[in-house]
Amino acid sequence: MVRSPARNAELALLLEVAGTPKPGNVDRERDVDDLHFEHFLAGAVGTQKGLRLAAGGTPVGEAFEAAVAGMSDQSGGNTQFGCLLLLVPLVRATTQRGLAPESAAHVVEHTTVADAADFYCAFEHVDVYVDDPPEDMGTLDVRRGSDAVPELERRGLTLYDVMERSAPADGVAAEWVNGFERTFETADRIESGQGPVTDRAADAFLALLAEEPDTLVAKRHGRETAREVRERAAELHEESERADRDDVREFADELVERGVNPGTTADLVAAGLYVALERGVEL
Amino acid sequence: MVRSPARNAELALLLEVAGTPKPGNVDRERDVDDLHFEHFLAGAVGTQKGLRLAAGGTPVGEAFEAAVAGMSDQSGGNTQFGCLLLLVPLVRATTQRGLAPESAAHVVEHTTVADAADFYCAFEHVDVYVDDPPEDMGTLDVRRGSDAVPELERRGLTLYDVMERSAPADGVAAEWVNGFERTFETADRIESGQGPVTDRAADAFLALLAEEPDTLVAKRHGRETAREVRERAAELHEESERADRDDVREFADELVERGVNPGTTADLVAAGLYVALERGVEL
Repeated sequence: MVRSPARNAELALLLEVAGTPKPGNVDRERDVDDLHFEHFLAGAVGTQKGLRLAAGGTPVGEAFEAAVAGMSDQSGGNTQFGCLLLLVPLVRATTQRGLAPESAAHVVEHTTVADAADFYCAFEHVDVYVDDPPEDMGTLDVRRGSDAVPELERRGLTLYDVMERSAPADGVAAEWVNGFERTFETADRIESGQGPVTDRAADAFLALLAEEPDTLVAKRHGRETAREVRERAAELHEESERADRDDVREFADELVERGVNPGTTADLVAAGLYVALERGVEL
Repeated sequence: MVRSPARNAELALLLEVAGTPKPGNVDRERDVDDLHFEHFLAGAVGTQKGLRLAAGGTPVGEAFEAAVAGMSDQSGGNTQFGCLLLLVPLVRATTQRGLAPESAAHVVEHTTVADAADFYCAFEHVDVYVDDPPEDMGTLDVRRGSDAVPELERRGLTLYDVMERSAPADGVAAEWVNGFERTFETADRIESGQGPVTDRAADAFLALLAEEPDTLVAKRHGRETAREVRERAAELHEESERADRDDVREFADELVERGVNPGTTADLVAAGLYVALERGVEL
């Protein structure tokens, strides 16, 4: 029996949140304020309809909005919005022409203005943390939701165009314009790892966090904090080759206390897990 | 948006395994030998096809076998066989005539010889721990899988008949013949609880374990051990009204070390969670 792409995507969401220690984020061992592990479980189960639509050929924007609507059927708030923005085009690519960086790039490059409109509507289902929009995008602030659609249409912006404008400050949008580079690197890392996949997901999280500043942390707490978190992660990542994980756990506790959650990095891990599962990584 | 019965059943499996501390079993904080948390996540996602069949009106045996086949698509072995034996008829009852003890009883009482045959075939997908069969059931040892089907047919035994014979020594089969009594009691307990649903699931686990000896423990380790575990659970359950959970965690660690896992009790919690979700308990 082979799991369908939609089910692998849901399983990727579950494995991602189960990986521990994952500094600053909800994981198997940590809840964060009013956001609990169970909200992620319910969120993941809720995405299934939208993910199946994506697998069946429904346009990316529409499938994404459906997935976000289903995800939001729990009281914790935003659990996997960013993950879905990666998973939906990846699932679409898988069934359309086989999963690879090129096919994923093809899917996102062929999104339309209607996809962009559905993406904006998705913000009405859940409170997503976003920064002020880039200078020329003021009237296209995603927080306006469907109110921004007429302006999108007037300017003829596709969802890819919107992501291109967000890419410099948003690690998820950056994947859209760079052929899902870090996603596929993360899949390689997970596939070549040893032991439970949830442990490999936690390792991949630390590796990604060590590599580049998390853009959600940068938006919420400023670039300086994002840089500091990256440096701390880099030190721990080097040590983790030989050390046990107590020091990573301490860092995890500290970030949770400070309210610093590297959410974009978690999104990349979920996407990497999906690719690894599609390629047959065994659980 | 309302989750479908099949998705609520999958979410019940996820919430069950996430509840901690749950003495002796895999939970959010504990893996057991080669059986990891991630195997339960993959197992739960895999059940979806069979659960949807049950919701759509496929006979209980066939839907159960499909759910077990999907659950088995991971390397940890049996993760949720007993849970599914409760969830499949409950899901069927939900869509057929509304979820209640009477409708669940109606579904199981109307199972057929074909349902029994499919149940036996389900044992071929995964290694399930079972005891020697009752005296008059030697040729109907479930470990014979589909080889036992001709004998089942000769004797005209329905799946309900099989469960009736197993009920004295099996807490899951007992639910089939007593109107899912402990399942619905567990749902009441979860609904009237406070805080995260996963915490309430862990409380319900301890309460059930304190109430009656776990039949899986009795089969594997003897009745004396099952009695001892029940007594320890009863002491902790009384204390837990006022104490924190460190003592329950210690007990959990001890049981894991001894290899004692009250699996039947976990099955009842999953079934109770499903009923609570269907009744609208909020996450």
